Amino acid sequence: MSRHLYAVILAGGSGTRFWPVSRERFPKQLLKIIGEETLIQQTVRRVLKVVAARNVCIVTNTFQAETIKLQLSNWKNELADNFVLEPEGRNTGPAIGLAALRLLRRDPEATMLVLPADHVIKGDGKFKQAVSFGYQLAQQGVLVSFGIQPAGPETGYGYIQPDTRALLGTFKALSGYKIRRFVEKPDLKRTRRFLETGGYLWNSGMFMWRADRLVEEFAFHQSTLLKGLRAMDKMDEAGPSGEQLAKRYKRLKSVSIDYGLMERSTRAAVIPVEFSWLDVGSWSSLEKILPRDKRGNVTTGNVVDIDSQGSVFFATKRLVGSIGLSDMVVVDTPDATLVCPKSRSQDVKSLVELLRKRGTPEHLEHTVIYRPWGSYTVLEEGKGYKVKRITMLPGRRLSLQMHRQRSEHWVVIAGTARVTRDKTVFELGPGESTGIPKLTRHRLENPGTVPLEVIEVQYGAYVEEDDIVRYQDDYGRGT
Amino acid sequence: MSRHLYAVILAGGSGTRFWPVSRERFPKQLLKIIGEETLIQQTVRRVLKVVAARNVCIVTNTFQAETIKLQLSNWKNELADNFVLEPEGRNTGPAIGLAALRLLRRDPEATMLVLPADHVIKGDGKFKQAVSFGYQLAQQGVLVSFGIQPAGPETGYGYIQPDTRALLGTFKALSGYKIRRFVEKPDLKRTRRFLETGGYLWNSGMFMWRADRLVEEFAFHQSTLLKGLRAMDKMDEAGPSGEQLAKRYKRLKSVSIDYGLMERSTRAAVIPVEFSWLDVGSWSSLEKILPRDKRGNVTTGNVVDIDSQGSVFFATKRLVGSIGLSDMVVVDTPDATLVCPKSRSQDVKSLVELLRKRGTPEHLEHTVIYRPWGSYTVLEEGKGYKVKRITMLPGRRLSLQMHRQRSEHWVVIAGTARVTRDKTVFELGPGESTGIPKLTRHRLENPGTVPLEVIEVQYGAYVEEDDIVRYQDDYGRGT
Repeated sequence: MSRHLYAVILAGGSGTRFWPVSRERFPKQLLKIIGEETLIQQTVRRVLKVVAARNVCIVTNTFQAETIKLQLSNWKNELADNFVLEPEGRNTGPAIGLAALRLLRRDPEATMLVLPADHVIKGDGKFKQAVSFGYQLAQQGVLVSFGIQPAGPETGYGYIQPDTRALLGTFKALSGYKIRRFVEKPDLKRTRRFLETGGYLWNSGMFMWRADRLVEEFAFHQSTLLKGLRAMDKMDEAGPSGEQLAKRYKRLKSVSIDYGLMERSTRAAVIPVEFSWLDVGSWSSLEKILPRDKRGNVTTGNVVDIDSQGSVFFATKRLVGSIGLSDMVVVDTPDATLVCPKSRSQDVKSLVELLRKRGTPEHLEHTVIYRPWGSYTVLEEGKGYKVKRITMLPGRRLSLQMHRQRSEHWVVIAGTARVTRDKTVFELGPGESTGIPKLTRHRLENPGTVPLEVIEVQYGAYVEEDDIVRYQDDYGRGT
Repeated sequence: MSRHLYAVILAGGSGTRFWPVSRERFPKQLLKIIGEETLIQQTVRRVLKVVAARNVCIVTNTFQAETIKLQLSNWKNELADNFVLEPEGRNTGPAIGLAALRLLRRDPEATMLVLPADHVIKGDGKFKQAVSFGYQLAQQGVLVSFGIQPAGPETGYGYIQPDTRALLGTFKALSGYKIRRFVEKPDLKRTRRFLETGGYLWNSGMFMWRADRLVEEFAFHQSTLLKGLRAMDKMDEAGPSGEQLAKRYKRLKSVSIDYGLMERSTRAAVIPVEFSWLDVGSWSSLEKILPRDKRGNVTTGNVVDIDSQGSVFFATKRLVGSIGLSDMVVVDTPDATLVCPKSRSQDVKSLVELLRKRGTPEHLEHTVIYRPWGSYTVLEEGKGYKVKRITMLPGRRLSLQMHRQRSEHWVVIAGTARVTRDKTVFELGPGESTGIPKLTRHRLENPGTVPLEVIEVQYGAYVEEDDIVRYQDDYGRGT
């Protein structure tokens, strides 16, 4: 396809409805919900059928960027300059606008295929066809959306009514129309009527347009927002300037591309598509994509059940025992468990909101924390100590650092560790250990070709992450 | 009360219906279900109102004995010689018979108050009164049971019908009668009829009799069993002889005291009592002893709920999030979670049976394992390593030992450790660490006056408990 085509993947969602597997800093697109790859990995593979990796652009926020980079490390070099970082989520309008400005700097002819990172799509051939057609229509200057034939009276989606008398073009079996109207998340009564009368489509949240045309529409319908975005784009061009950028971004209007532009534009178009599409919106929707057993249960992980039916079980290594459940959701993670009826699975959002208000850490992060050099898992925390398992990728290292309040003890359980302790440097193999007294400069490094695994025991009056003095860091973190 | 009165506490139950908080090796009587003490601690406190600690005898099995001794360490010296250990559970008949023979060796006048370790009783004054009266009746040579006024049509209990025309005696407001008949766990229809017609009592599982009279009844109704018990008692008198005893015990008839003796005896009596009594039989019965919130939920531990009603939540430190549950049971422990409707809470037993058949470790033990020197918790296990937190009581020590396949690394996080490594002995304080290579003789000891806490990291091709060579052990474990 054209070298002017770019895929813009929106990966800034906060995925609260998949708690406790998703967390504020670890949302849905980072999860393996179906198959061996995470949703964002699947999304990248999908767009690689229509664009080269260097034409893939990821819009996300600073909290998720490290994990996403880790998950997309297959295309590390090609994607290196293609991350658009939002200081915080301001809905899809600003995110897409920022990506458009960035692409225009690189290619004035840029045409954008915009798609969320967390959708499940089946049918690569039909997807490719729809994008080809979308590209054609976009060159006519219209804003293209992709409409899905409704499979039921879903109230969680937006609906689009095409104007079937206003045909914009055809391509193989596909047709493109002007849009007659948008309906934002209608109630059950209306969605039922839509299904009966026909002629309504689900808004897939996927779009195509020329970047220059999009910016024109921004200028017309969202001029203040565009001004703000232009200023940010300039700052971004001049190099990273974190805090100032964040301040400015916070002042931007939080608005969806649908409400802010598509619904206002006279040039909105829709292509009814034929590939199978699912916005995995909640735990109960797993039934639509994962196989059910003969009692209608969907089960992942270590579950021992007697007599349950129509239920969704999502567990990990911990054991979940269940008896006689009907239409329930049970989700288990190392530090938190969720139990609710399927019919309440949209309300997980409210539960997460409640956790956030109460300041419980389980809404924010997992016990596994990803870092540019690998990851760590807190195995236990107690008064005056913390035990972690650290996994360090080959060739990576921690910053050269020092702690004022704690000593650290390392036992290597796999791979080779190169340890810097004050002025000495030495290596440890599996089963070997060392101690780093407090106030001692040190560094942990993986000089090998396989991941290094270390059990770290911290001891001290204060064992939080912010007791750290960094002397040198490979990842540009504050020294 | 009389110095010939002995309390015999039956603490050998396997408590499968309280899984996952109870485990095969950690049953109900060892749990804090209500209040700050475990059920067996509460039972001991209760009997101390009527007998001295040195007259309390505990019948249990070898797996639970260490934990029970730990929980009853307040009365360590008084109870030291009062444990009757069964190699395995053979129901209440053999357990009580064995205790009777042991007591007769000590005191030919012994009168036994037999009571299960896992009942909840309120009303110490009325309990004491009932025991006083029971003692009087027992001296007449009858076998006394205690009957509870039924609070509902419970099908989980046995029922006793007193013969109200056969009064054996009175004491204050209490009367004792001969028993007309026993009914073993009747169905719902019959229990309802019993309630309507009146005159039926719940069999509390608590009894009183003279030990010599009980043995006479055994000789009459269970002569083979008695022969076996006498042989075992002889072996026991001669000193511990584990394996042989176990073999013999396995051959004994597994029979309840109710079915094996009480129902057959012509001298069975019952005292209808007035104290409040509950055999906490399943998770749903917690509603009867713990306070409910305004939606009818009973909640223990870290639970964040929206809109649930009539449900039982029993959690620990891990977070349980729930939404809109009705009449459900959710129980969470560090390594396993249970979810079932209250109406199915008796079936937890079947679930545990299923786990046992599949060989899952979660049916058998907790992540916390109690030992005579303290306890340990497995924080994580992986290929080639294991991480434990070890708590050692003041003045205790591990055996002098050696491992063929693993090295061990210790970091002290509280207290003082005395370490023997080969021929050297040294002490470590909090924040200090050491390593024990494989094939090295070593010992960990707590010379201090506060508990010692150590994080242990094991590394090796094989990290199971049976890789141990013991050279000396304070607790008589195989060297």
